[in-house]
Amino acid sequence: MADDLKKGLEGVLVAESSLSHIDGDEGTLIYRGYAIEDLAREASYEEVLYLLWYGELPTHDELDSFTERMVAERAVDEDVLATAEALATADAEPMAALRTVVSQLSVTDPDGETDPEDREATLAKSRRLTAKIPTIIAAFDRYRDDDEPVEPREDLSHAANFLYMLNGEEPDEIAEETFDAALVLHADHGLNASTFSAMVTASTLSDVHSAVTSAIGTLKGGLHGGANQNVMEMLKEVDDSDKDPVKWARDALDSGRRVAGFGHRVYEVKDPRAYILGEFSESLAEEAGEMKWYDYSVAIEEFMSEEKGIAPNVDFYSATTYYQMGIPIDLFTPIFALSRVGGWTAHVTEQYEDNRIMRPRARYVGDKNQEFVPIDER
Amino acid sequence: MADDLKKGLEGVLVAESSLSHIDGDEGTLIYRGYAIEDLAREASYEEVLYLLWYGELPTHDELDSFTERMVAERAVDEDVLATAEALATADAEPMAALRTVVSQLSVTDPDGETDPEDREATLAKSRRLTAKIPTIIAAFDRYRDDDEPVEPREDLSHAANFLYMLNGEEPDEIAEETFDAALVLHADHGLNASTFSAMVTASTLSDVHSAVTSAIGTLKGGLHGGANQNVMEMLKEVDDSDKDPVKWARDALDSGRRVAGFGHRVYEVKDPRAYILGEFSESLAEEAGEMKWYDYSVAIEEFMSEEKGIAPNVDFYSATTYYQMGIPIDLFTPIFALSRVGGWTAHVTEQYEDNRIMRPRARYVGDKNQEFVPIDER
Ligand SMILES: CC(C)(COP(=O)(O)OP(=O)(O)OC[C@H]1O[C@@H](n2cnc3c(N)ncnc32)[C@H](O)[C@@H]1OP(=O)(O)O)[C@@H](O)C(=O)NCCC(=O)NCCS
Ligand SMILES: CC(C)(COP(=O)(O)OP(=O)(O)OC[C@H]1O[C@@H](n2cnc3c(N)ncnc32)[C@H](O)[C@@H]1OP(=O)(O)O)[C@@H](O)C(=O)NCCC(=O)NCCS
Repeated sequence: MADDLKKGLEGVLVAESSLSHIDGDEGTLIYRGYAIEDLAREASYEEVLYLLWYGELPTHDELDSFTERMVAERAVDEDVLATAEALATADAEPMAALRTVVSQLSVTDPDGETDPEDREATLAKSRRLTAKIPTIIAAFDRYRDDDEPVEPREDLSHAANFLYMLNGEEPDEIAEETFDAALVLHADHGLNASTFSAMVTASTLSDVHSAVTSAIGTLKGGLHGGANQNVMEMLKEVDDSDKDPVKWARDALDSGRRVAGFGHRVYEVKDPRAYILGEFSESLAEEAGEMKWYDYSVAIEEFMSEEKGIAPNVDFYSATTYYQMGIPIDLFTPIFALSRVGGWTAHVTEQYEDNRIMRPRARYVGDKNQEFVPIDER
Repeated sequence: MADDLKKGLEGVLVAESSLSHIDGDEGTLIYRGYAIEDLAREASYEEVLYLLWYGELPTHDELDSFTERMVAERAVDEDVLATAEALATADAEPMAALRTVVSQLSVTDPDGETDPEDREATLAKSRRLTAKIPTIIAAFDRYRDDDEPVEPREDLSHAANFLYMLNGEEPDEIAEETFDAALVLHADHGLNASTFSAMVTASTLSDVHSAVTSAIGTLKGGLHGGANQNVMEMLKEVDDSDKDPVKWARDALDSGRRVAGFGHRVYEVKDPRAYILGEFSESLAEEAGEMKWYDYSVAIEEFMSEEKGIAPNVDFYSATTYYQMGIPIDLFTPIFALSRVGGWTAHVTEQYEDNRIMRPRARYVGDKNQEFVPIDER
């Protein structure tokens, strides 16, 4: 047994994977060997899903038949809508709502419960979950606004259909393309905490829905997916107070708080996804003729770089990108899930193929020899 | 970075803990220094919860006020009952149902969402979850039998109240004591996979309900909590076929299958909990004047020991213990959760106190330099 404590498992290799790779020194990210910049610019989220699940980029025909199977799974049952409505009425936190509804989806999945040996069933469940999560998020959001949910359309892309269900109208081309690229950028990222939690759950040979439910609960935390929401809340606070982003960030550091959207376990340099999302954020600002959110962000980035040598991560510019697209702030993290479910399920599929139960140890630092005294004598 | 692959994290120390310790060579288990044998014999599950959450065994007064707070939390809202009923009607797998309802409980928890800094809130949520899970399991089971749920009683112990809600009548003393001791034996066990998954979820500073939801999904798998149910199904198959347990086990090994209820990552010898549960299983058999389930078990234990040198784990004799108490087979794993939630929440509390995000790496074994070809040229 290794005797040194691996708190946070930094640098510990827990599995082999051919899904994605981060070079933290160079600041590069690849999915199955393809540079994230090329995929974001030239591939759709559907192509990336195919790449992650089936190992290669699809031809036109492959993509057509894949898309056909995906879009057929977009609709959700009345039961699922009823749960989404009840959760919206109860004012549920959106990630708590998504976690609950995804857990419930297992009950009616045609491939049933657990059969990790059946790769086809695993992929079918992955496809259904990925197809339905946008429908759930959009329905939940509309219910809480006292609107009726909008039924999914089969003729729209994954990205466009979500924005359509959310807003009740088709997105313009820029919104669709930006959102699609954001989904591509978030689809996978090695063994981040939520993906790892999905693998831990799957490692007992539990089912895909359990694994994805774990991942949603894990993504929710402020050190992980919850950060994109926190970034926007910070920028709003800046705007609502003295509009001095550097002062805000300095105060945060001085009081020992973290600045959301900065730092990463693996990247030593700026996250390559942050470059691309930063460009989106800037374009949307120019398009709208309102630069303040982008400008605040750039000021904080410069300050954090000078002061702490820490660069933005994926959450920093995704926040203003989504915000400027009119997406409610508390849907930013659910949207992260909407994309990352592709990666989660791909890693679960890999885990099942070469499984060993994830069972580490703790270093015991408590008492070892307590003599038991019955309660009457305590 | 360590370069060797730690598949399954065998022997990797990921945290410090003063909750429980396994000595795998000696076959001993302690909770905060107290031998599991003493606790099973002399302490109630409520005392053990207090021990895990607050660090020491309670005095009478401490236990009284603790119990008062616990029993006040047993009842669940109409909304929660409605979900349990809908899941029962949809014929949900019981662990999938429990995972869904526990996820939903976060929405109405008075301490709200996430505040890992607030230890009192964490413990209050832990208490509520632990108090309500028995109510949920019993209600779900009664709904699927077309019975009305039985309201919890505040004057019964945790163990007796569950059996009362499940069966609609108070258990006799032997049933109560046996079940209470089984709860004590399952309450904590170091960083088993479900506890670890709760810690991974909590490590992003996500909330207690997310962590426990992850743990339920992880416990569900056949390599972990699902094993107790599989043990009983194996014994039933033996009984329904040629009543030859050794033949059954030999066939399993010959065809490369695992025998449920055997083997453990940490114990090199027989699990101390299996000794105690074996005694319960034997007593209940004698009491009922029907030794077959116990006898099949002993025969398989002897065979596995001779053939493979592998000893029973906690799930092996808990199966026949619960079965002989008249508990439905597919509630065995939910009952494991009903107890282990004490340990899960105690470890989450520890994790929050000294947190670092759990973010390991994978060894990338895929292509590194794929040239992107647009879909029209593929
Ligand atoms: C992402 C994150 C959790 C990585 O955690 P980690 O690998 O355990 O990194 P550490 O906590 O060891 O941080 C290393 C150092 O950088 C500092 N640091 C890291 N992120 C920071 C941030 N966002 N703001 C201020 N300081 C930060 C830490 O204080 C620490 O400094 P120290 O050594 O002087 O104490 C961490 O950077 C963070 O909390 N970021 C903010 C939340 C966020 O944006 N998460 C989304 C990630 S996609
Ligand atoms: C508990 C368990 C998952 C531990 O897994 P692990 O630490 O990864 O152990 P390994 O898979 O490395 O097993 C070690 C060896 O024992 C064998 N083994 C372990 N448990 C076995 C079982 N239940 N039946 C048959 N062989 C078993 C393995 O085949 C392996 O032998 P090999 O080295 O010849 O291949 C495993 O023992 C198991 O699957 N048990 C059955 C399910 C169960 O009862 N789970 C509940 C645990 S509380």
